[in-house]
Amino acid sequence: MNLSFLLTQGIPTSLALAVVGLAFAILLIRNVMGASAGNEKMAEIGGAIQQGAKAYLNRQIRAVSLIAVVIFVAVYFIRGGLASAGFVVGAVCSLVAGYIGMMVAVRANVRTAWAARIGAHPALKIAFNGGAVTGLLVVALGLLSVGLFFLVVEKMYSTKASIDALIGLALGSSLISVFARLGGGIYTKAADVGADLVGKIEQNLNEDDPRNPATIADNVGDNVGDCAGMAADVFETYAVSLIGALFVGHLTAPEGNHAVLVYPFVLCGLSIIASLLGIGWVNFVKQKATPALVGGVAVSGIVAAILFKFATSAIFTAPVTMAGIAVTPSALFYCTLIGLALTFAVVWITNYFTSTAHNPVRRIAKASETGHATNIIAGISVGHHATLLPVLCIAASIWTCWDLAGLYGIAIAVVSMLSLSGIIISLDAFGPITDNAGGIAVMSGLPEDVRKITDELDAVGNTMKAVTKGYAIASAGLAAMVLFGSYVEELKSFLKLDEVVFDLMNPKVIIGMFIGGLLPYLFTAFGMDAVGSAAGAVVLEVRRQIALKPGILNGTEKPEYGQCVDIVTKAALQQMIVPALLPIVFVVGVAFLGKEALGGLLIGTIVTGLFVGIAMTSAGGAWDNAKKYVEEGNHGGKGSFAHAAAVTGDTVGDPYKDTSGPAVNPMIKVVNVLAILVIPLFFK
Amino acid sequence: MNLSFLLTQGIPTSLALAVVGLAFAILLIRNVMGASAGNEKMAEIGGAIQQGAKAYLNRQIRAVSLIAVVIFVAVYFIRGGLASAGFVVGAVCSLVAGYIGMMVAVRANVRTAWAARIGAHPALKIAFNGGAVTGLLVVALGLLSVGLFFLVVEKMYSTKASIDALIGLALGSSLISVFARLGGGIYTKAADVGADLVGKIEQNLNEDDPRNPATIADNVGDNVGDCAGMAADVFETYAVSLIGALFVGHLTAPEGNHAVLVYPFVLCGLSIIASLLGIGWVNFVKQKATPALVGGVAVSGIVAAILFKFATSAIFTAPVTMAGIAVTPSALFYCTLIGLALTFAVVWITNYFTSTAHNPVRRIAKASETGHATNIIAGISVGHHATLLPVLCIAASIWTCWDLAGLYGIAIAVVSMLSLSGIIISLDAFGPITDNAGGIAVMSGLPEDVRKITDELDAVGNTMKAVTKGYAIASAGLAAMVLFGSYVEELKSFLKLDEVVFDLMNPKVIIGMFIGGLLPYLFTAFGMDAVGSAAGAVVLEVRRQIALKPGILNGTEKPEYGQCVDIVTKAALQQMIVPALLPIVFVVGVAFLGKEALGGLLIGTIVTGLFVGIAMTSAGGAWDNAKKYVEEGNHGGKGSFAHAAAVTGDTVGDPYKDTSGPAVNPMIKVVNVLAILVIPLFFK
Repeated sequence: MNLSFLLTQGIPTSLALAVVGLAFAILLIRNVMGASAGNEKMAEIGGAIQQGAKAYLNRQIRAVSLIAVVIFVAVYFIRGGLASAGFVVGAVCSLVAGYIGMMVAVRANVRTAWAARIGAHPALKIAFNGGAVTGLLVVALGLLSVGLFFLVVEKMYSTKASIDALIGLALGSSLISVFARLGGGIYTKAADVGADLVGKIEQNLNEDDPRNPATIADNVGDNVGDCAGMAADVFETYAVSLIGALFVGHLTAPEGNHAVLVYPFVLCGLSIIASLLGIGWVNFVKQKATPALVGGVAVSGIVAAILFKFATSAIFTAPVTMAGIAVTPSALFYCTLIGLALTFAVVWITNYFTSTAHNPVRRIAKASETGHATNIIAGISVGHHATLLPVLCIAASIWTCWDLAGLYGIAIAVVSMLSLSGIIISLDAFGPITDNAGGIAVMSGLPEDVRKITDELDAVGNTMKAVTKGYAIASAGLAAMVLFGSYVEELKSFLKLDEVVFDLMNPKVIIGMFIGGLLPYLFTAFGMDAVGSAAGAVVLEVRRQIALKPGILNGTEKPEYGQCVDIVTKAALQQMIVPALLPIVFVVGVAFLGKEALGGLLIGTIVTGLFVGIAMTSAGGAWDNAKKYVEEGNHGGKGSFAHAAAVTGDTVGDPYKDTSGPAVNPMIKVVNVLAILVIPLFFK
Repeated sequence: MNLSFLLTQGIPTSLALAVVGLAFAILLIRNVMGASAGNEKMAEIGGAIQQGAKAYLNRQIRAVSLIAVVIFVAVYFIRGGLASAGFVVGAVCSLVAGYIGMMVAVRANVRTAWAARIGAHPALKIAFNGGAVTGLLVVALGLLSVGLFFLVVEKMYSTKASIDALIGLALGSSLISVFARLGGGIYTKAADVGADLVGKIEQNLNEDDPRNPATIADNVGDNVGDCAGMAADVFETYAVSLIGALFVGHLTAPEGNHAVLVYPFVLCGLSIIASLLGIGWVNFVKQKATPALVGGVAVSGIVAAILFKFATSAIFTAPVTMAGIAVTPSALFYCTLIGLALTFAVVWITNYFTSTAHNPVRRIAKASETGHATNIIAGISVGHHATLLPVLCIAASIWTCWDLAGLYGIAIAVVSMLSLSGIIISLDAFGPITDNAGGIAVMSGLPEDVRKITDELDAVGNTMKAVTKGYAIASAGLAAMVLFGSYVEELKSFLKLDEVVFDLMNPKVIIGMFIGGLLPYLFTAFGMDAVGSAAGAVVLEVRRQIALKPGILNGTEKPEYGQCVDIVTKAALQQMIVPALLPIVFVVGVAFLGKEALGGLLIGTIVTGLFVGIAMTSAGGAWDNAKKYVEEGNHGGKGSFAHAAAVTGDTVGDPYKDTSGPAVNPMIKVVNVLAILVIPLFFK
């Protein structure tokens, strides 16, 4: 295969592949929308969910826009017009990816429920394709926004100007995704926790019982949190990793070497082909849900690896000397393999810690027999244990990639890892769609066997959601390391220094690390607070409605769903502001202490952020499935003492795994991007 | 005042002061033992507690001795005979401090209960003096062991040989204290959680109800965990901080400068006077418990500051150049003030986060209204929030001390901070004594008003226990920083290098930090597991006894207390082994990756350890007091829905604040001491 054109035309080629991805996303939208949306009752419920989700997202955009304008102006003054234009591009694309993905998801849910009347595979297809729309949008938009912006600015000005301006794009996407993750996360879990506390525990109602006034808010939450929030988050990691690779390539390779800039784009472009094949696999190979989905990911991974091999040989014909290290083509190819391998390793590990088939979840379920407290103790312990293997894998990847190709090698591994986002997010977004489908089936009174099918798909969706969180945090950690390297290289370049040392014996570095280590702790604390207090407000509202209209409980009176939707919408918007602004306050505050302190801050945030993120998402997933395991009839099953304890664990796990934990990912990158951004302001 | 003899005779003088402290400890033991031990029923209960505590500690010593022998041999081969002799001294003194302190505490408890018949102040005096025995023993033994060992070896060999051998003493005390903290922590909380889960929640029994078969085990636990464990822990921090200051002074000051070695000893010696005056204050100024205790600490702090001023001028008459910094006498004096100020700041902050008078605890109490899960969410959030101020204070102290006097300045601040241990531990050990006194009062059927007095003292004891934990973790963090500096200086000296750089851009450093960051997570996870599983075993045993002898519940049959004591004894001894050996495995494993990776490991452990430690101890204290706040009649009071949720939080908080959280303190120091120890083995 003669691919030598890739060196000169690699970026346009990758953009063309992104357009192909976009075209397939539109095809999938048509495919999903072509399915029947079911009966009138379903349309009513689906419409309420759509309306709530749209209303929330619109209000979120308004709230964020105000802050974005301020930051836009700041970026303009610090980094000039190009960077501020990049900021707008990054912010808008991040929003669009989340928005469209969510709008498809809220339409796929009713259709999945209806298709489940026919069978499991038709339902799986619609739910998965609904999710795949988000997956393809994220990678296509990510690649197009970074690539077009880079090419246009390079053409108008210079490569250097273009790379410099990308910092704006990175900040725009990171900032939006912090808000989307936090706001969406607070929304979904406040509604979920509130609905469960009063519905399941006090009134003994089932999940999604239409008599629960918070049930629509709960379903809206799945979409604004798990769809829109996740999409913005991974869009950001994807775009920022690509930009990080460009930074590192540009700053460390010999001037004028274009191959190191083309390469990450080509990896991303080729992965779109790999993702499309994976999506095709899930659609056309009729299997049960789990093997079909796992097969899709495996196909994507294998195809990507093969394509990467050819692309690497085509783009690099000789070693490149970067930061003093001679980097060979095969070394770079091995780095892409490490990225793919890390993806599979983290997915496997997270699955071990969060699936009902393995010891950790079963241990939590068993601990529920002795009560609420032992369930919680066991869950927290599982979260802590779950940090071991991912962190060791990340450390091993850093070590090997550095040895092979220095900082650029790590950057390439991250790009390779994230190039699979297309298929990985398809799995993730599949979760909330089936979750909603189940809710709609119950609320609209579809036959029992429909609910059975959606329940099965929902269980698969839960595991997929858990494992993609492991993927998101591991890739975020590695991407943040690349950004830290970019910060250092940018400092050297800006201050015209041969070396900047961040020595652990320098007290400024240590102080920076302590303060940086604080950020994930404070940030997650605010997230938990927000969910706790908003959920409390939902509980009070539901109790109020039931007291006012006792007919709600026997189905003779209709609850006011809108009230609960309104409460969580307001709470989420209000309470996302302070934590989302924390990174700005910390970075600017510590920048006054000097560049060494700021470097320490970045690493401190990455280190504790990685642990907090992995521990929280793993514990949350494990609690969730421990409850499911008990509900399957173990340790007394539904209604038992152990079940009550397991529900408590699940509820505590909700903000762990869906609000605070995952929001750490974009946060640690915002911090790093901000640090790069403010270099000209503070260090002269 | 002419104190110029301090420069030449400072170490003997400080040892003489230590002997004075020891003499007062013996006086206090006589004072406590002179009080009446009450009636026969009380003697029986007190005897059972004494017997259980003694049996446990003896078995713990046997278990630890086996491991200690292996490590003794390893130390001998790595560092020679002197260091291994030091290892024995450190290990034995650490054990003795805990042992004697505990033996006095288990005798003070009955006497406190009996004295409470007369009034609050007599009871306060006995409980406090019982605790003060431990406080004085810890500082006197710490000072004597380090000082005598130093002087003897210096006399026989040389200053350098003596300082080198002290690493063995540091390791001995650290290692024992990890075991004591973990074993004692697992014991006390397994018994407490088990007793509560089945007693309070299932059977609706009160705390310390003699019908609960786990109640004696619970009372034994207070002594082996809160007395013996805490004493070993602070003994270790005290000894290791002193040794750290000697290391840093020896390695960075001009050769032959004796002042920098004498100074830390003198600070410790003078503080014994300060502590004695504080203890006198509590005994002779008749006030309510809280103002009396706070007054005692304030007196100690002020006296210490004044004495430090004179001592500094006497020992240092001119600036000393250390590691390139000219350190003035007044700079050193300011460092001692920073150490004292940090003590008060951390005590104040911890009090804010864990006292019923302030917002954090009340927020948890309020969250209990909506159930178990919101209580837990609120508590975890409080723990995370509670890290902010202590970490900022620690960072500020590092910054200022470094600026004033470099690494030696930090070492002096730590010594100054820990020199107050005498009075601080008196407060802490006061807690379990009053807790036990209350239990004995209930079990032996003393009148209601006795219980009221012990309950009031117990509430004060709870707050004191919480604040001293903040003190312990803050000082441990700072002491560990000094040890890290010692590691670096020792490396430089051993490898004859002018500089060893631990650059954050070195992937080995980063990998080391990630792996080091893991340690506190894994370590605490094992601690939580141990408590969870042992508590589960207690629950099953109590259920078994009640099923077998239904008469237990109406008081016609006597429970078999010994069974529960036996279960937790075995569980604690078995389950402390793995986590206590983790630091050794990690240090040796990472040492293979090189000195930079090992340096990264040390800092990684300190950073996450500080956060995990503060978050866990604060959340645990806050949960405990939130339950008390509800029991005072708020949010529905005892027996309400909110109370059940608050009990869950308190139970989760038990292993947080008394097992995993505080055990992090000695662990982060063991890691650092081990790293120093293995330098000759790995880096040549």
